[in-house]
Amino acid sequence: MKQNVSMDKIQAHCKTVGFVFPGSEIYGGFANTWDFGPIGVELKNNIKRAWWKKFVQERTDTFGVDCAILMNPRVWDASGHVASFGDPKMDCKNCKQRFRADTLIEEHSKGAVSAEAMTNEQMEAYIEEHNIHCPHCGAKDWTPIRKFNPMFITSRGTLEADADKVYLRPETCQGEYVNFLNVQRTTRAKIPFAIAQIGKSFRNEITPGNFLFRTIEFEQMELQKFCHDKDSMDIYNDYKQQAWNFVTSLGLQADHLRFHDHDKLAHYAKAACDIQYLFPMGWQELNGVHHRGTWDLSRHQEYSGKSMAYLDPFTNEKYIPTVIEYSIGADRLTLALICEAYDEETLENGETRVVMHFHPAIAPYKVAVLPLQKNLSEKAKEVFSKLSTFFMCDYDEAGSIGKRYRRQDQIGTPMCVTIDFDTLEDNTVTLRDRDTMEQIRLPIEELVPYITNKIAF
Amino acid sequence: MKQNVSMDKIQAHCKTVGFVFPGSEIYGGFANTWDFGPIGVELKNNIKRAWWKKFVQERTDTFGVDCAILMNPRVWDASGHVASFGDPKMDCKNCKQRFRADTLIEEHSKGAVSAEAMTNEQMEAYIEEHNIHCPHCGAKDWTPIRKFNPMFITSRGTLEADADKVYLRPETCQGEYVNFLNVQRTTRAKIPFAIAQIGKSFRNEITPGNFLFRTIEFEQMELQKFCHDKDSMDIYNDYKQQAWNFVTSLGLQADHLRFHDHDKLAHYAKAACDIQYLFPMGWQELNGVHHRGTWDLSRHQEYSGKSMAYLDPFTNEKYIPTVIEYSIGADRLTLALICEAYDEETLENGETRVVMHFHPAIAPYKVAVLPLQKNLSEKAKEVFSKLSTFFMCDYDEAGSIGKRYRRQDQIGTPMCVTIDFDTLEDNTVTLRDRDTMEQIRLPIEELVPYITNKIAF
Repeated sequence: MKQNVSMDKIQAHCKTVGFVFPGSEIYGGFANTWDFGPIGVELKNNIKRAWWKKFVQERTDTFGVDCAILMNPRVWDASGHVASFGDPKMDCKNCKQRFRADTLIEEHSKGAVSAEAMTNEQMEAYIEEHNIHCPHCGAKDWTPIRKFNPMFITSRGTLEADADKVYLRPETCQGEYVNFLNVQRTTRAKIPFAIAQIGKSFRNEITPGNFLFRTIEFEQMELQKFCHDKDSMDIYNDYKQQAWNFVTSLGLQADHLRFHDHDKLAHYAKAACDIQYLFPMGWQELNGVHHRGTWDLSRHQEYSGKSMAYLDPFTNEKYIPTVIEYSIGADRLTLALICEAYDEETLENGETRVVMHFHPAIAPYKVAVLPLQKNLSEKAKEVFSKLSTFFMCDYDEAGSIGKRYRRQDQIGTPMCVTIDFDTLEDNTVTLRDRDTMEQIRLPIEELVPYITNKIAF
Repeated sequence: MKQNVSMDKIQAHCKTVGFVFPGSEIYGGFANTWDFGPIGVELKNNIKRAWWKKFVQERTDTFGVDCAILMNPRVWDASGHVASFGDPKMDCKNCKQRFRADTLIEEHSKGAVSAEAMTNEQMEAYIEEHNIHCPHCGAKDWTPIRKFNPMFITSRGTLEADADKVYLRPETCQGEYVNFLNVQRTTRAKIPFAIAQIGKSFRNEITPGNFLFRTIEFEQMELQKFCHDKDSMDIYNDYKQQAWNFVTSLGLQADHLRFHDHDKLAHYAKAACDIQYLFPMGWQELNGVHHRGTWDLSRHQEYSGKSMAYLDPFTNEKYIPTVIEYSIGADRLTLALICEAYDEETLENGETRVVMHFHPAIAPYKVAVLPLQKNLSEKAKEVFSKLSTFFMCDYDEAGSIGKRYRRQDQIGTPMCVTIDFDTLEDNTVTLRDRDTMEQIRLPIEELVPYITNKIAF
């Protein structure tokens, strides 16, 4: 990562080259929504696949689900979201904008102060003492702190008269809890085992506007491990480590990461720890590992009237499993990996090269196929056809070869294959490496195994 | 496909083995929502990947996006959804349930009559004449037909006072239209080119309860091809054929498919054609190819004030592109492929074998690793580790080998690898084919290329 790159610069680059566009942009945008463009969708999909591979595919004890976003409203009674979900909010009386009090404090202190363990009174006192003004209009005229439930509410019903209140899920994990018995029955899994899900959640949040960091709809990658309480702390510690290994294996540098134990725990929780990443705006949460006790399954047992107990086939012990949750934001991780990959290099000729040093496994295109001249298009398209059955490839025949290399650097394509007149003679191509800019000559038939090897994860 | 299999049987099988569970089931479910279980999520993801591979990855003229579900509400003014979107609905005055009039007619006639081109008056007359009763309570006491806008409405806002009305998108394609300029600019694509998306849409619909066929949230796989009007009918016909080739290549039999030209076209449309599949409840729409004229981009130009014109770099002609849309429901295609794959065979010993004959590319697990006895687990897990870095694999050591084969047949695993005592000696395994039940002996190191070859798509 380039030192001190600003979020504005990252955001501008993402728009310029096609990672991410502002949502509904031709209508002036829409508050904190973003659309992934042609290379952004590939990047994010690759990240989701990498997570699924490590946490579902390569394990015998983890099973996926993909649950509906719209759930029976009783789910949110059981989870506590209807009654008590909400962040501490203050309105600016001057411009009428609403803010999270804890975020005001954390942003004012540039992350040095955590408001996590503060009461509402302590936050109000801090904001008064430190003279924190409205980030929007500059006034200092705050309402007291109030709770605001950030669930989006809609209604469902075949009859207008009795249309039911329905919520957009604010978290995906309830899908795993309500399907605990279904998954256990169909997989015949023995505890400990996990259920994993990747999916969208929605929060009507006050967003501080840090690009993809906090958005009103966001995609979670998370798993819930069901275990016996006696094993739970070992499993908790194990996922802390696995979570760390995962993000470093994708290319986040260890000195841009830190564990952060929660200061304040939910009443049912035994332990909770985030991994924070050093984003351009400071240290912020990237993922969480939470020891949730038996809270979730107990509540669903209470509200649904269905027993959530597990009968151990070896010991005959019957108990409600303890849950260890590991959750990471797909958009947030995408943002972290974009920030980490972004680099500006000064070349020998004085030019600046913008290059995204993505791990090849997550790079949007694995390879770009570039005919040196337009009359080599036919051969180049033949090569594109061969490669694109295995990998996402770009094809570009416009502009000088130097310019085309620069374009691929800007979107992080790890390899460029150039088709020239020798290719017609001997079926070899030039393969140019994004990071070293070194070029080698390879027979076309060696490309697939060469690239496969390079992008392994 | 087994002849005359009922949707109830398909649905029961899906729940029994873990493809699909009723949404929020422990709370008595939630109207027409479904949760994909451990094998369902793999099946559906494989189908989505297969579509993306054929229509995005292997093409140089198609670019993906992944747009926000919540869009600026002006989008739905421009698209016409706020003003005129809606289906013809009738209420049963006795039980207060609401139904689609066209669906009542089509289901009553078992698909023989299409209500597509009927006016409201014609539909009311047909229902009267044919004495169609309420499918829910059996009464015949209908209200007149009324329009009902099926968009889910929620509200967004940092201030309660002026919370804005926001819609859950009822279709994904508007994301492509509003990003037409962004995608064209960043990819420097020349017309004709397409923008593709896979994502969720929501409709507060009256659902006839045909399992995954019509649900309140559903996932679309669709692309919008932007072209010059003079080429548009060729492109339309080309996508009709490609759409057909895609579903047959995944295993739908040609005699279970038919083209269905629309009887009634939207005022801006030049042509529209569905592919219908012979579901257990009759012929129903699987995908659509629509010639949408310049309607979409013109409307967005009008409502946003941004020019949607394309300047042809060769001819210097400036024009608003014509759009050809190709759209297929991911859930619907998943359902069709489940119906098609389901089979019950009578074996020589008189037993019934339930087997899902999925194309190996979409099968949830590519291979199951089965130690013949528990004391071969260590070697079996070694094989699982080798294979699971490349493929989704199941691992099963419980029960007789025959029972374990049957389980894999029921979920459509194309290959089973059995580890026995010879494996410890010579590193060979038994590989058993799902469809033929034939077994061959293979060295472990040949498994990856063998399986890779089998699952190619």
